[in-house]
Amino acid sequence: MAPLPAHALRWLDGRLGSLETRHEATPEVPVADSRLPTRARAEIEAVVGAHNLLLDRSSRLDRSGGMSYVDLMRRRGHGKPDVPDAVVLPAGPEEVLDLLRVCAEQDVGVVPFGGGTSVVGGVTALRGDKSAVVLLDLTRLDKLVSVDPVSRTAVLQAGVRAPDAERLLAGHGLTLGHFPQSFERATIGGFAATRSAGQASSGYGRFDEMVRGLRLATPVGELRLGVAPASAAGPDLTGLVVGSEGAFGVITEVTLRVRPLSTHRRYEGLFLDGWERATDVIRDLAQHRVFADVTRVSDPQETEASLALTGGTKAKLLGAYLRARRLAEPCLLILGWEAGSRAELAARRLMAGRVLRPHHPVRLGTALGEAWRHGRYNGPRQRDALLDAGVCVETLETATQWSKLATLRSAVRAAVDEALPGSIVLCHVSHAYETGASLYFTVLARRSREDPVGQWQAAKAAACAAIVPLGTISHHHAVGTDHAPYLRGEIGDVGIALLSAVKRTVDPSGVLNPGKLLSAADRR
Amino acid sequence: MAPLPAHALRWLDGRLGSLETRHEATPEVPVADSRLPTRARAEIEAVVGAHNLLLDRSSRLDRSGGMSYVDLMRRRGHGKPDVPDAVVLPAGPEEVLDLLRVCAEQDVGVVPFGGGTSVVGGVTALRGDKSAVVLLDLTRLDKLVSVDPVSRTAVLQAGVRAPDAERLLAGHGLTLGHFPQSFERATIGGFAATRSAGQASSGYGRFDEMVRGLRLATPVGELRLGVAPASAAGPDLTGLVVGSEGAFGVITEVTLRVRPLSTHRRYEGLFLDGWERATDVIRDLAQHRVFADVTRVSDPQETEASLALTGGTKAKLLGAYLRARRLAEPCLLILGWEAGSRAELAARRLMAGRVLRPHHPVRLGTALGEAWRHGRYNGPRQRDALLDAGVCVETLETATQWSKLATLRSAVRAAVDEALPGSIVLCHVSHAYETGASLYFTVLARRSREDPVGQWQAAKAAACAAIVPLGTISHHHAVGTDHAPYLRGEIGDVGIALLSAVKRTVDPSGVLNPGKLLSAADRR
Repeated sequence: MAPLPAHALRWLDGRLGSLETRHEATPEVPVADSRLPTRARAEIEAVVGAHNLLLDRSSRLDRSGGMSYVDLMRRRGHGKPDVPDAVVLPAGPEEVLDLLRVCAEQDVGVVPFGGGTSVVGGVTALRGDKSAVVLLDLTRLDKLVSVDPVSRTAVLQAGVRAPDAERLLAGHGLTLGHFPQSFERATIGGFAATRSAGQASSGYGRFDEMVRGLRLATPVGELRLGVAPASAAGPDLTGLVVGSEGAFGVITEVTLRVRPLSTHRRYEGLFLDGWERATDVIRDLAQHRVFADVTRVSDPQETEASLALTGGTKAKLLGAYLRARRLAEPCLLILGWEAGSRAELAARRLMAGRVLRPHHPVRLGTALGEAWRHGRYNGPRQRDALLDAGVCVETLETATQWSKLATLRSAVRAAVDEALPGSIVLCHVSHAYETGASLYFTVLARRSREDPVGQWQAAKAAACAAIVPLGTISHHHAVGTDHAPYLRGEIGDVGIALLSAVKRTVDPSGVLNPGKLLSAADRR
Repeated sequence: MAPLPAHALRWLDGRLGSLETRHEATPEVPVADSRLPTRARAEIEAVVGAHNLLLDRSSRLDRSGGMSYVDLMRRRGHGKPDVPDAVVLPAGPEEVLDLLRVCAEQDVGVVPFGGGTSVVGGVTALRGDKSAVVLLDLTRLDKLVSVDPVSRTAVLQAGVRAPDAERLLAGHGLTLGHFPQSFERATIGGFAATRSAGQASSGYGRFDEMVRGLRLATPVGELRLGVAPASAAGPDLTGLVVGSEGAFGVITEVTLRVRPLSTHRRYEGLFLDGWERATDVIRDLAQHRVFADVTRVSDPQETEASLALTGGTKAKLLGAYLRARRLAEPCLLILGWEAGSRAELAARRLMAGRVLRPHHPVRLGTALGEAWRHGRYNGPRQRDALLDAGVCVETLETATQWSKLATLRSAVRAAVDEALPGSIVLCHVSHAYETGASLYFTVLARRSREDPVGQWQAAKAAACAAIVPLGTISHHHAVGTDHAPYLRGEIGDVGIALLSAVKRTVDPSGVLNPGKLLSAADRR
């Protein structure tokens, strides 16, 4: 957890109206006794050993839900967290297979859990129609299984946390290049299960593009995929497992494309005038395929907030400079280059420069780029401080084709503004493609005293209603519980029927991650 | 059909032993009467009109099977072609939906048919357990539905042939960039249904990477996908439809990523010494991500055959030159660049040049590159002439990780050589990735008089047995009937169970493309 500087609090206070000045005392959160039946407990212990089955209050409470605003508020006493009946810590893929067999036989729900960073309810310990639910903490699956330096692939177990993956790979001179905001906690299995996209997706690709193979444990046996870099041997089953969020099985190992560690790095900041120009630039870079590895642009609101929250004399001088350069609505563009040689870096920057020039960017060297790089994981770190200050803070994201991007941004802004009058809505594009891009929104509002959870849920529902006709319900946060009601709108009755059929095949008793991806109604 | 020059025939005659000198008279191929029941016929006519239901001998025989060696030989009287009971020509996606409903109700098999270029039995009119089978000729679905120039997407109906797609898109200054050897006949729907990869896949991507959305007609309704350029809203259903080969439904429309027509082009030929060096170069280019749009390298055998079949004084001079340059085993590398500006072309060639230099390529300008470009679709064109000359000619392909590529090539060569002693086995890499590459083999043998079909089937079975432990059973030709027995080996029991569950969901009566993708045994 990181504190918020005083000037940041002052700015928020000015924008949102007077915030809380004293901390709420967090009440003791009630935790019900474990309902795990004796027989199931014995069978699970037979697989993992008694010391890897945790039944104590804090082990269970600590893993009750993910990192959404609602999850955090529940753990602060606003609403009741869903606490699992037990936490199980398997040692490897074979134990996971055995546990799934046991849980299916004993009719106990199973929630796979990596870093616990889901922001869509993906790891909430729901029971569904089961009498008990166990949480499968995968962090003992923490090995780099193998590296193939010639083929540039590495096999990592699902529970390896992202920083550990980078550390293990760095020993071979390699990197995954996957740096989402959840980097410090999240795991390889979680990235695959949720179709994660990292901040450097423009250069290293989305996580689904890195996955070259996997092992999936299911109650009916194991699925192993990935004999070739590409194949026409039927439909893409890897793509069916990636994004399946524990509802089709537990991913235990992932074969990933890796790259050499970069040796030459440059993160630079540029300003563009206005959101239309800003997205035109990103589109132009994407369609010319001359992306920096990190390519992200903030809208005028996010740019203003970034400068205000940075604070200090430098930010003031920068503001004055941008006014002097007559930028009516400055939009901050970060271009982060990771290259294997000085020549590569220069050649790529040259090609991007040719595309940028007609858009008249105001170049500001590397100070802002480096500042962004150093603060790239601050978002999650500062949330507790914001909650302490009485701020309702949450993010949401979507993606659509370029031709609909401006309309989608306006629609979401209007929906949130109506649901949360006086709130601050910030937006950036950080994942772009030839045909379209994602939109990532951060919402800051003065928290309701009466119903702080309901307040956000109403705003999120309004935002989702705005998204459904124009884009995808999630570009990289997955479905979980929160987006499950919207999935049918996106993939239709036949799409839901297909997912349900897949689920029934690998999970006939319905023990896998109850209530996620497919709602109970969808599964029939 | 293109003739073979005399020197090419002489070279083959020398290498394979004396070939046939007189044409075989092709016997009349027996075609059974249509078994389409009266009721089904009436219902189909009610959907498409009587003039779009063809029952005559030649309409049915012309669409009996694809373009594999076995298909061609069957149409020459060696073995019996599977002739559909009727050919139906729907006008659009709605008629396809209605036809599938009718066929499911009437329990009549349905084989979707585009260009008929399958080389794995994918369009063979098998009846399975049905009493009749109709062939759904999709070539009336021939429209460019819409173009979104901002998002660089185009919606094309499934029956649009590749040259027509390029012509329609060129009217908007756009190209798909998909140029497989089947280009002159094959259709958009077929590319999607089989996970096609074109000769320019290094630059434009595989067809599955171009697909941004689609409409799939199934007996239980329509599936529409593609609201965003990328999504984390659950598993990838688009990837489940792409490669489903008509077994899950009929693709009626595809939304494709398109690009501006290139304005600057350069196709060049280089020689490298030896296969190891040749694949090292392709791997280096792939892993540095500095590919030409067309990047392909032939092994020493294919290089020798190409020069010999080209013939003439130039080829002799070239051979002498390569000997003078002391290339023990010359491997021809084609780099084809398609760029939007002179600067882009120069910058990309410069970056590739840096990677190439340490491998000491012998550069030979653009003559061989242009020759390759002009002859790029000759393979299918010359097959009839080779068959006339008594040659058994067929191709097969696979893909694997870089670290297994040499072993896989040797294994396939050895397997074919044992099954077809004295045959010529040529190989090239034309689709490469950071983690691995495809291998494409061309086999030429003196044809057996007694059992020309069984002769090839034995060789193909031997090659498949060599492939299964090392790579995928198909990189871009799909499964069809020929590879169906090997799919379980690649995706396992759970994988087959998943595909079967999907099939039962959208095709409960099992009318869709009987015997393709999944064998009858697999579908239970």
